[in-house]
Amino acid sequence: MPATRQVSAADLDKSDPLAPKREAFHIPDGVIYLDGNSLGCLPKAAVARMNEVVANEWGESLIRGWNDHAWIDMPARLGNRIAKLIGAAPGTVVAADSTSVNLAKALTAALEMRENPNVILSDTGNFPADLYMAQGLIRGLGRGHKLRLVAPEEVEAAIDETVAVLMLTEVDYRTGRRHNMARLTEKAHEAGAVALWDLAHSAGALPVDVGGAGADFAIGCTYKYLNAGPGAPAFIYVRPNHLGHVEPFLSGWMGHEAPFDFDPRYRPAPGPERMTVGTPPILGLSALDAALDVWEGVDMGEVRAKSMALGDLFIQEVEERCGGYGLKLGSPRDAEARGSQVSFHAENGYPIMQALIGEGVIGDFRAPDLMRFGFAPLYLRYQDVVDAVAILECILRTELWREPRFQVRAKVT
Amino acid sequence: MPATRQVSAADLDKSDPLAPKREAFHIPDGVIYLDGNSLGCLPKAAVARMNEVVANEWGESLIRGWNDHAWIDMPARLGNRIAKLIGAAPGTVVAADSTSVNLAKALTAALEMRENPNVILSDTGNFPADLYMAQGLIRGLGRGHKLRLVAPEEVEAAIDETVAVLMLTEVDYRTGRRHNMARLTEKAHEAGAVALWDLAHSAGALPVDVGGAGADFAIGCTYKYLNAGPGAPAFIYVRPNHLGHVEPFLSGWMGHEAPFDFDPRYRPAPGPERMTVGTPPILGLSALDAALDVWEGVDMGEVRAKSMALGDLFIQEVEERCGGYGLKLGSPRDAEARGSQVSFHAENGYPIMQALIGEGVIGDFRAPDLMRFGFAPLYLRYQDVVDAVAILECILRTELWREPRFQVRAKVT
Repeated sequence: MPATRQVSAADLDKSDPLAPKREAFHIPDGVIYLDGNSLGCLPKAAVARMNEVVANEWGESLIRGWNDHAWIDMPARLGNRIAKLIGAAPGTVVAADSTSVNLAKALTAALEMRENPNVILSDTGNFPADLYMAQGLIRGLGRGHKLRLVAPEEVEAAIDETVAVLMLTEVDYRTGRRHNMARLTEKAHEAGAVALWDLAHSAGALPVDVGGAGADFAIGCTYKYLNAGPGAPAFIYVRPNHLGHVEPFLSGWMGHEAPFDFDPRYRPAPGPERMTVGTPPILGLSALDAALDVWEGVDMGEVRAKSMALGDLFIQEVEERCGGYGLKLGSPRDAEARGSQVSFHAENGYPIMQALIGEGVIGDFRAPDLMRFGFAPLYLRYQDVVDAVAILECILRTELWREPRFQVRAKVT
Repeated sequence: MPATRQVSAADLDKSDPLAPKREAFHIPDGVIYLDGNSLGCLPKAAVARMNEVVANEWGESLIRGWNDHAWIDMPARLGNRIAKLIGAAPGTVVAADSTSVNLAKALTAALEMRENPNVILSDTGNFPADLYMAQGLIRGLGRGHKLRLVAPEEVEAAIDETVAVLMLTEVDYRTGRRHNMARLTEKAHEAGAVALWDLAHSAGALPVDVGGAGADFAIGCTYKYLNAGPGAPAFIYVRPNHLGHVEPFLSGWMGHEAPFDFDPRYRPAPGPERMTVGTPPILGLSALDAALDVWEGVDMGEVRAKSMALGDLFIQEVEERCGGYGLKLGSPRDAEARGSQVSFHAENGYPIMQALIGEGVIGDFRAPDLMRFGFAPLYLRYQDVVDAVAILECILRTELWREPRFQVRAKVT
């Protein structure tokens, strides 16, 4: 059986239309990287690009770089590149700040649109960072807003006229469970609520259609599936019909209609630039630009098909090979209901994950007992999935995780 | 006279204790850079450091870099490095976000400390970005706060019991006029107000003593005199006695007491980390780290002495050589009352500055008529100042600025 399946994985890789993309990335020797949902692999071109930006653009052009290398346009230009990956129209997205700061911008703007209802509805599967930001803003605004958390599967039923803002992360960071963005946004609108989506685990992982879904705001991260590097700039989307009236709470000089007029009165820019704040981080944006080059011409339908197939293969392999060791699927079995990650509950999940990482199979662990594995379709092979599970099975069988000093020497290749 | 003075400048350079620091920077050929107050020159070591961070730390370590390269500690570690340059105690500064976002954190925290007075007092010389942020927060908070702007010289008299927050930039971005931080902070405290200082044009330009002055909050920028690159991460200082009770309005997961517990309730970290929000921007922070290496062992007293001498020499040279062309000093004549920059009013300031830049003398222009020149003591020579003014005189005398197609061929060297 295993031999047959390995041939099959190799065959799948041979016929994979995304297979050539792997060449665009640096994959460390001996590593099977199943953590692209936390920090994506390095696009090879980013090395030369960063050297050029630092040594030449900054070093030689100095202040002239803002014009000569169009640094000043990067938030909007890269926003337009990201827009293509999330179903947004041109001129609706900017790359700026962190995901959390962008959430603050979107949530304050959303709350201003709804005067009377006072509930921010979210779910217990939302990333804690998003909940923290809502808690801080509720306290700071002091207007009696409430954060209502329900189980992910209860969100739809909980949308009612008390809800000011529906604030959800499309793909659950632990389980990979995926919300139906279009349906929940429609329900929110029917109740008069504003829909705000966090795409941290969606952008670059699966086709997103913020425009088609009618999302009012979306935010997201570029260091996960978009591969822009540790702590890379985030993005924010504003639905076109809101752009003319959103008054940014964080009203910064880059969001001004004419930043270089040095007018003492704030006047928001007409486009999504009004959602930018301070001087753009050119080094981080340049790495993002190089990372987005890799996405040129990529068919998100192919990304999704491969992502689902990788996840399905992983589940099948783990359950067949490691089923006797107490692992229990923590993600939806139906690939349509998942993002691009799969989690398993395991009693000794933490030391098992440490042992896996020691063997070069890099996933991560989320308390209390979740082993989490991400599948980045641009650089992951079917063979990697089979090999990773073979190593996992060996670790479980030999109980190697009880002896972190030892390593399995004979790696599956 | 000029010949004598040029010898004198060369002598000054020979006896300049900071002269060896120039070697740490890349200065483009043919450039006299008088815009380090906008974007500092590239520290040579940043090139190799960025390559290492991108190719090795990110490329090879991937997610393990957060621990293996202590990325997670960078905001606090670099904050401590900056603290030394601004007179702050260890554990009171973090490097994070943009100056504007840090202003939002500090201003919201400051407003929470003062319930009844509703005035944010600032001056007309403050950077518009800071005024925009105050305007946006006042509108967004909706609690009837008012932004009161007075002329810089009227600030002290305007501090009264109606003031909740005194929000000032120490050094005026146009004129270089410097506020007396210690005295104004003391006056603010006597009136019961909170003192918030923007150090954008101070950090790395002159000795700052936020601790001694008793400033409650300070924010600042690292891409000017600290030379950390375009759009580099900013910093925020919180007075030690406030650290225990400041409740961040922007409550992000990096500000959580235990970010990796994924606790759904926000609990602020005990130290200045509570003022951080999203995932730290590792590429930008790494460039900042390399830039701060250059500051090791630098005596800020020597920086200040050279800065004042460079500014005085510039004023003397311009007035002696270019006095007949209508230039009028727009900065305090007394070096003690200036930061590290000097501005001149000039009727045709914009085209004159363009001609200067065409000749490699890079300053900048601020409407309506200010030609602005910054003096970064770590890499600028006295001879540069003399040469820059000689080129300026030639441009004015020949009216070369009316003919932007032509250039002065024989540069003073």
